[in-house]
Order: sequence, then structure tokens, then C-alpha cells
Amino acid sequence: MHNSRRGEVDPFIVMDVMEAARAAEASGRSIIHMEVGQPGTPAPEGARKALAAALEEDALGYTVALGLPALRSRIAQLYGDWYNVDLDPARVVVTPGSSGAFLLAFTALFDAGDRVALGKPGYPSYRQILRALDLEAVEIETAPENRLQPVPAELRGAEFDGLLVASPANPTGTMLNREQMGALVGLCAEKGAAFISDEIYHGIEYEAKAVTALELSDDVVVINSFSKYFSMTGWRAGWMVVPPALVRQVERLAQNLFICAPHASQVAALAAMDCEDELEGNLSVYAANRQLMLEGLPKAGFDRIAPPDGAFYIYADVAHLTSDSRAFAAELLEGAGVAVTPGLDFDPDRGATTLRFSYARSTADIAEGLSRLQSYMAGRDRE
Amino acid sequence: MHNSRRGEVDPFIVMDVMEAARAAEASGRSIIHMEVGQPGTPAPEGARKALAAALEEDALGYTVALGLPALRSRIAQLYGDWYNVDLDPARVVVTPGSSGAFLLAFTALFDAGDRVALGKPGYPSYRQILRALDLEAVEIETAPENRLQPVPAELRGAEFDGLLVASPANPTGTMLNREQMGALVGLCAEKGAAFISDEIYHGIEYEAKAVTALELSDDVVVINSFSKYFSMTGWRAGWMVVPPALVRQVERLAQNLFICAPHASQVAALAAMDCEDELEGNLSVYAANRQLMLEGLPKAGFDRIAPPDGAFYIYADVAHLTSDSRAFAAELLEGAGVAVTPGLDFDPDRGATTLRFSYARSTADIAEGLSRLQSYMAGRDRE
Repeated sequence: MHNSRRGEVDPFIVMDVMEAARAAEASGRSIIHMEVGQPGTPAPEGARKALAAALEEDALGYTVALGLPALRSRIAQLYGDWYNVDLDPARVVVTPGSSGAFLLAFTALFDAGDRVALGKPGYPSYRQILRALDLEAVEIETAPENRLQPVPAELRGAEFDGLLVASPANPTGTMLNREQMGALVGLCAEKGAAFISDEIYHGIEYEAKAVTALELSDDVVVINSFSKYFSMTGWRAGWMVVPPALVRQVERLAQNLFICAPHASQVAALAAMDCEDELEGNLSVYAANRQLMLEGLPKAGFDRIAPPDGAFYIYADVAHLTSDSRAFAAELLEGAGVAVTPGLDFDPDRGATTLRFSYARSTADIAEGLSRLQSYMAGRDRE
Repeated sequence: MHNSRRGEVDPFIVMDVMEAARAAEASGRSIIHMEVGQPGTPAPEGARKALAAALEEDALGYTVALGLPALRSRIAQLYGDWYNVDLDPARVVVTPGSSGAFLLAFTALFDAGDRVALGKPGYPSYRQILRALDLEAVEIETAPENRLQPVPAELRGAEFDGLLVASPANPTGTMLNREQMGALVGLCAEKGAAFISDEIYHGIEYEAKAVTALELSDDVVVINSFSKYFSMTGWRAGWMVVPPALVRQVERLAQNLFICAPHASQVAALAAMDCEDELEGNLSVYAANRQLMLEGLPKAGFDRIAPPDGAFYIYADVAHLTSDSRAFAAELLEGAGVAVTPGLDFDPDRGATTLRFSYARSTADIAEGLSRLQSYMAGRDRE
């Protein structure tokens, strides 16, 4: 018995930070967590109450593969409410998190050896899922002047069978506006390539509403999740919107690869969609945190940042401070008691001189973290 | 945008039966469900109570990729309790159902084009998951005299990189004893092939305890789930035991492919493991149902059956009654009001003359279903 080649995926470098943070906390130190990519809040109260009731009344066995019909309809309604898009619930597929949606989308769209383009920096699991499915990642080095989003000029000469974009993006929080998204959708249509839009951070926006690819075309795959705006990371409930011609194939794949998304999570997710007050409350915390970060990070010397359009991350260029983001993250943990993510997870090359700061936790935590960073970096300057 | 070839998985033929059953019920008919592969019981009460408490106290965010440490330890303990096997919890991987475990195992062990041997008839998703991952299924036509389990003589001349066995098996309920399992493990060791043991029906046994592959070797991958014995199908919680040398690779794949199994389901599963009284109660229902089936099916003319060692299925040879199991299942639904699964889902060839009867539901349902089958088949004989 031997390990496969396609299973040789890279480790997350942030795992070292998280393990060091855990060890520091176990030894009694206080650590501020600016490395985590998840809300500190639980699922909305209405979601938890709905599940508590279902636990008494329902056997919660398998659901049909595409998900509870009521949940699929409610998701379709969201596209009307948020984007004024009229969406047929038959095109909505409930998945085990957005992770499950990527597995489904990639297996439904691509065969071994196919090429999928995506921007760098980006969410590290994109590359690893592609590799595990014997697909080739075509990484596009995005430019700071494009706010680290891909543009058609960078893609026109490339050969690829699909393009994956994220808006708002992780780690940058930048968005594609309607014109920018439309240009990429058009390019894919020209090339006969699939267009996959990761919209997991939709709902967490600060200036303008994020654009869904469904505003521009029906011939796209949209992936979203209850993890971020709906504050349900650990529940592993997400969804996908696919073109009508892909529904049957995705359904059969889902039956075989997953059977269904977790039933209890689907019940909770359906109720979460009606918890707008609590969710908007969470959002106002992120907005306050973002403001603190935009003011406080430059005071700590992290002044090469751009205001994020959405999500809860700031991606900082720290080339003036280090050429080894991994060592620098370890230093900040040790010296300042603040955990951050080295950019290397998002961009194996240029990430050596970047850091991602998350502001998903409480405002008190963010204020304390910024204060620690400022003190530590002030002392470091004097050395 | 076009559909992939590897996504062209076969539909489940039983889906037609289930849809027809649903339509019949919607029109007011009573249907007895002998087609379903899941318990009618909910998760044990202790599991539901534990989750209800956690909903109040815990944010239920992501867990670490390999699963809650307490759950991994408790699963390791099960191997001591059930099999007297001393298992290091570090080798236990909590997965999103056994479906997730298959995805992890196959991607960790095999590269595109690799060949995986498995017995026919078998659980249909094995073939489909392999196809979706660009792996080749090497189907071994098992023999009735071996109770439809593969034997070394059938495999010795074949070329394969892995062998997948199931004991108790679906659809037959037959088991491999220690000697039989050992011979197959030994053959794989000789050939340098991976040995994967699907033990999802362990705990549901009637005469002898099922043998785990871990009794025979550490160099095997064992897959199990909370779906069947623990009565938690819709929760999507399962596990895998892997050789020490595979743990790191599986961990990285799990981080990227799933992030984690559903947190709420892990909390419920941990508590379910201490609900022995309720679970043994469920088991005694299956045992009573099995006895009814073994007595009642022959009276309906389904006399070509073998007593199942485990699981909750009887696989009947109906060659004397039909050469089209799909049409025959439709006839039984229409004529007798009993839904059953055509064998074609488990064996695309010989399954034309077999049916699978499930006895996972209540004893009253089983008695009623048998009575309907007996009346209908008696009338059919007279025609």
C-alpha cells in the first residue's frame, strides 16, 4: 500500500501558527486570533431553535440528493431579494459546504488533465482540490493595480477549460464589479470555458453590493455557503447554482459522492435565512472592526493595505518589513501575542512578503490585537 | 460549458421506484417501503440531547480536520470493546459519512487510471465514485457458492492496485469470516495492492460478530459510519482507520476537500456511542424482522434466498419469476403496494433477475409487507 501522487497536497502553513497559538494558550498566554477565517459567532438563534425543534419531531434521515425542497426554494428567493435575479429553484443544489460544491462542480465539468485558471493569491484549497482530482491549476499572477483580481488581458493568451473567480476574494477582500465580472464571463463564453464564481463572502460587503455571476449569464456555476454571512462554518452546508443542462449530472454525482448534505444542517440553514436582524448585527461588527483595522494597522507600520470591499480580511504587503512571512508570523505570535496568516498559503511565491489579517472576531479582540501590534512594532523599530 | 465524461455516472434505478412510490402515496395509497437502505429510527435520544445542549453552549465552528479528539478516542475504544483490537486514536479519521471516507481513501491511495477490484453485486456508489475520480473498477463476478463474496482464486490473475470488500455486504448481507478476510488481505499484501474494508454494517449482525480487517493487519484502510448501527444516516458522520503512514496525507486531503465533518453531527455521534440500550433495542427489531422475512418471503414465492449474516437486506434470486427486475419491481409496487429495489443497481448484468428486500423499518411494516407480497403473488400464480 502506498500513498498516491495526487494526494500529496501542500500543508497549510497557517497550521503551524495555529498549533503554536494553541501551545501558547495552553501555557497560559493570551493570544488574539487574527489568523482564523471564520466568524466567532454561532449559527443564528432562530437556526438553533429550529433544529432543537426538529430534533424532537423528525428522524432527520437522508434528504434527497439536491437538498430539502423548501431550502432550495428559499435560496432561489434570496437571488430575488439580494440581486433581483429570478432563479428557478430547480437549478439550486444544496451541498456539504462550499467544499462539497467545488468537488461536485469540478467533477461535473472537468476530466482528468483539464486546465482550470484561477488568480494568485487565492484560497489555497482551490489548488489542492484541483490536484486531488487530477486537474491542472493555471495560476494567473494578478496585479496590485487590478486589486489582485484577474483581468481578461492576463487570460486571453492562456489555454484553459474553466476559470474560477472569487468576489469578494480571500485573502484580499476585493470584488469584481459588474463590468469586470462581465468581461471575464464573456471571455469564457468566447473560449468555451466554464465560468465558476465563488461567492462565499456575499452578504459581507461594506461599500457596494457584490455582483453575482447570475446577473450576467445563466451559463455559469455559482458557489456559495452558509458558513460566512450566515455564521454556520461547522455545519457544512453550502449551495451551488448550475445551468439547467448540468442539473441531472450534478444530481447523480451528489447521490453517489455525498448522498446528501447533513439534514440537521439543512434545517438550521433554512431557518437562518430568516434571521436577518441577528445577521445584520454580525455584519455591523465586521464593519466596525474593518474601520478599526484600516486606522490601526498603518499605525503599527502595516500601511501597504487596500480597503477591502467585502469579507473580513486585510491582505498587507509587508515587503518593507520581511522577506519571510512565515518567520514574521511566528515573530508576531511570540512577540505581540497576535496570530496572523503568512501570505505563502495564498501565493507560494509573492506570499513571502504578505500577511493576511482577519477581523472576524469581536471588536474588543480586534482593538486589543491592534494595540498589541502597535506596541510590538514600535519596540521593533527602535531595535 | 459542457459536462464532463467522468461525471456521466449511472442513475440509481431504485430512484424510479422511489418516485413511483412517492406519487402513489401522494395519491392516497399505502406503500410499504422495502426499498430503503436506512433505519426508520432517529439518532438515539442521548445523541439528540447532547446536541440540544451543545446548541446552547458551543459556537459549533469548524473542528480540526481529523475530527473532535474526544470522538476519535471514543471510536478507538470501540475497537477494543467490539474486537479486542488496541487502536491508536491517531489513526482514526472522522469523515462526512462513509461517502466522504471513500473520497478520502481513493484520493489518498490511487492516481488517475489506477485499478480497484470489487465484487459484483455491490453497493452501486463504489463504481460511480471510482469513475468520478478517473479510477477503473475491476468488477469480479462473485459466485453463489461463495455467498456472493470475492475469493482469492477469482483475484489471483487480475491486475489491480486496490481491493475493496464489504462485510456484511450490501445487497446480500453476507460476511467474510476471519479466514476468508485474511486470505484476501494476504493476497493484497503479496500483490502490493491496497486493502479497503467497508464495515458500515458492523454492529448489525445476527449469528456471529463481524470481523474487522484490523484484526488481521494494520496495513489496511477500514471505513465505517454512524449511519446504520448508530441510526444516524442523515447526519453524514463516518470514520476511517488508516495505517500510520497515511495519516498525514489523509489529514491534508481532508483539510482541503472537506475542512471537517459537520460539528453538530460529531457531537451527536460521540453521545450516540454511549446509547447501547437504545441501539441494541433497534437491533432486536432488525433480528425479529429478519426472522419474519426468512419465513415469509418463501411463502410469497421468493424462496431462492440465503439467511443474511448482517445488515438489513435479503437479496433474492427471482430468475424463476422474471427476467426484468426493473419491470418486476414496478409490478410489485403497483400490484402489492410494496416498494423493493431491482438488483440492476448492484449488478448491471445478473441483477436483471434479482431483487433486494430491506427490513430496516418497523416490524409491523415488515409483517404487512410480507402479507401483501404473499396475497399478490398467490393471485399472480393463478393467472
